[in-house]
Amino acid sequence: MSAGERPRAAVVVTGSELLTGAIADRNGPWLSQELVGLGFEVAHVLTVGDRPDDLASALRFAADARCALVVTSGGLGPTADDLTAEVVAAFAGLEMELDEDMRARIDARLAAWAARTGFGGEALDQATRKQAMVPRGAVALPPAGTAPGLVVPREGGPLVVVLPGPPRELQAVWPSALASAPVRELLTGVPPAHPRSLRYFGLPESEIAATLREIGARRDLSGIEVTTCLRRSELEVDLRPGPHALAAADELHAELAARHARQLVSEDGTTTDELVARGLLARGWTVATGESCTGGMLASRLVDRAGSSAYVSGGVVAYSNEAKTALLGVPAEMIAEHGAVSPEVARALADGARERFGADVGIGITGVAGPDGGTEAKPVGYVCFCLTTAEGLVLARDPQLAGGRSDIRERSTDIAMNLLLRAVRGRA
Amino acid sequence: MSAGERPRAAVVVTGSELLTGAIADRNGPWLSQELVGLGFEVAHVLTVGDRPDDLASALRFAADARCALVVTSGGLGPTADDLTAEVVAAFAGLEMELDEDMRARIDARLAAWAARTGFGGEALDQATRKQAMVPRGAVALPPAGTAPGLVVPREGGPLVVVLPGPPRELQAVWPSALASAPVRELLTGVPPAHPRSLRYFGLPESEIAATLREIGARRDLSGIEVTTCLRRSELEVDLRPGPHALAAADELHAELAARHARQLVSEDGTTTDELVARGLLARGWTVATGESCTGGMLASRLVDRAGSSAYVSGGVVAYSNEAKTALLGVPAEMIAEHGAVSPEVARALADGARERFGADVGIGITGVAGPDGGTEAKPVGYVCFCLTTAEGLVLARDPQLAGGRSDIRERSTDIAMNLLLRAVRGRA
Repeated sequence: MSAGERPRAAVVVTGSELLTGAIADRNGPWLSQELVGLGFEVAHVLTVGDRPDDLASALRFAADARCALVVTSGGLGPTADDLTAEVVAAFAGLEMELDEDMRARIDARLAAWAARTGFGGEALDQATRKQAMVPRGAVALPPAGTAPGLVVPREGGPLVVVLPGPPRELQAVWPSALASAPVRELLTGVPPAHPRSLRYFGLPESEIAATLREIGARRDLSGIEVTTCLRRSELEVDLRPGPHALAAADELHAELAARHARQLVSEDGTTTDELVARGLLARGWTVATGESCTGGMLASRLVDRAGSSAYVSGGVVAYSNEAKTALLGVPAEMIAEHGAVSPEVARALADGARERFGADVGIGITGVAGPDGGTEAKPVGYVCFCLTTAEGLVLARDPQLAGGRSDIRERSTDIAMNLLLRAVRGRA
Repeated sequence: MSAGERPRAAVVVTGSELLTGAIADRNGPWLSQELVGLGFEVAHVLTVGDRPDDLASALRFAADARCALVVTSGGLGPTADDLTAEVVAAFAGLEMELDEDMRARIDARLAAWAARTGFGGEALDQATRKQAMVPRGAVALPPAGTAPGLVVPREGGPLVVVLPGPPRELQAVWPSALASAPVRELLTGVPPAHPRSLRYFGLPESEIAATLREIGARRDLSGIEVTTCLRRSELEVDLRPGPHALAAADELHAELAARHARQLVSEDGTTTDELVARGLLARGWTVATGESCTGGMLASRLVDRAGSSAYVSGGVVAYSNEAKTALLGVPAEMIAEHGAVSPEVARALADGARERFGADVGIGITGVAGPDGGTEAKPVGYVCFCLTTAEGLVLARDPQLAGGRSDIRERSTDIAMNLLLRAVRGRA
């Protein structure tokens, strides 16, 4: 299934440090999402080092791939190996010239910093001058840091948008790139994306694939690009219709939502975390956690959202048996009889957290995250969950989870969030 | 500064779902790290969709970039849009043929699954047959899932290693790719990497840049590729010498370690987390946490390591004032007098956690993570830390941190880990 019919765009990320595996690039995914949202088909994301020949090849590659738009990130700094503007100018056949207005702007921005650090003089002037060089006929975008972004037209295409590498600066400059005349003109020829997203919990990818095959035998899905993406325990299904398949996408969306209703988290792509937060606020509930193997990961995820103090009371990381007893009142005899990893202890952790923090909802998690500590009866990956409320609701699970230590801990956090979602939705 | 003189390698990642920004690719960074470790210069990482033309262009692009080796990930599944093997065969000018041995192997692997799910018959046979098709003259690698990896030689280069997309399968198949005859032969011509890494905490990137400029004025650094990479609060400096610059890299390494000794975490790239774990084990110390704004993130990070139960007692996420008092004994009057975010409360959280869990070391964190809750005296980003030990050591900090809510929480966790490192090293 292909989106077809959509203008193509490419992302070129520069940075030798991204080719050593030391850090993962954040700009490629971010820009892809933006471009898809604007209605482009993203042809590729290409990461190259700070080598002018490789960058020039990357630009030609995008032109050969029939891209109408190329967005680059990085290589706009003041040092000699920051060469993106020059390479893009050469690609577009444009001369570089000093933009006096931009120079004044960068000067003003650097004045305070230069005064504070004592850095300045010839080296600073040179750096400023370098960053204020703009290809003739390009649009210079106001810098978020010191490096201006650029929109560089090229005879016969593609249009090149040049953005700084630091993600915060790139994201800050992006709106002014979109507002520039050449990009606005290009966008008039791009059909809106009209994407649809569904999110499921606990639905295997093979099942959605089977459903899609079965529907595809009855319906024409050729104009809809369908991607399924498993994010740990959640499966996201994205439908991106071509401009002539909007109605077909609506029908497919409705059918997919109905077919796996039990596992459906949301039919508009809203995340579990967002739905849990809304649900807790709507019910006026507070939550407390009693975590063993997840070690605070659930509490941290709940606190991740701004405003979470309205519904998170707190939590205890009760990693040792003594802590389970001393801080959450789990009876030592219960641990001795059933083991620290048991449905009984999960429930006692939930009740203990709820009571100690005076919360409406308590969640207990205890499991064998490995790599050691597994037994035949309770192997690595066996995790017990319990959610209890003051009103008497009890949701319990004790699945056997696959993967390594961090997989098990992350999936456990996912399951706990899903239990919370079920609780706020009033479903068992 | 360039590594020069090293054979080049490229990574081609396939998967339309990676071009929507929905998920970040993990294979590109992982393979880059492996290839750099083997002594290659990574020319580029190119992500393309599941479109045969785009994949074919990507392979030609790598050949044009003078790459001796291309590693692909993805597109080896049983469905019709999984076309990597065929496209690579065409690129190398090789026919596809059925590998009967591989078919039997995949059959055996699927037998149990087919019996359990009832899936089978014609569709399964077709899928198995498709996955057992191998370019003539290629080496088929034993599959980790059901898809075999491939090592495909091409007249005039590059050698293409074809790996499955799921990161766990890719990483499982990689060693057998390295052990294959064509890869082993290629590697005989690759000079070993001999990389050197230094890790600093709290050293601005501009300072290391100034140091490098200053050293570069005295020494010849032209044979050493130096990349600096800021990971939140830690700065990693990687030196990758060309084959003729090993001694120069040793000298540069020694000078960089000496010049910023106070901020040095490690001179062999060992992480803070690893050093903290080793230090706690060596001293026989246990740790307990009392977290407010980080909400369990520090405890979770400590528990992340296998075997952490030997030195993590547990922690309390005391998000509300009541919880600080009830669970960690922070006097309500102290909160009223100094505020919940204050050095005094940070210390009381540390002492409370240490005492309640019977631990040797306690760490308290309380701060304004934002976006709301800031005041003129205590703006968003103001965070108080305290580490106390039973022996009377007290390390306190109250920096003003930059960034958004998640930046502030992550940086706070970094600072707490650095305090732990200082404590186990016996430095204030």
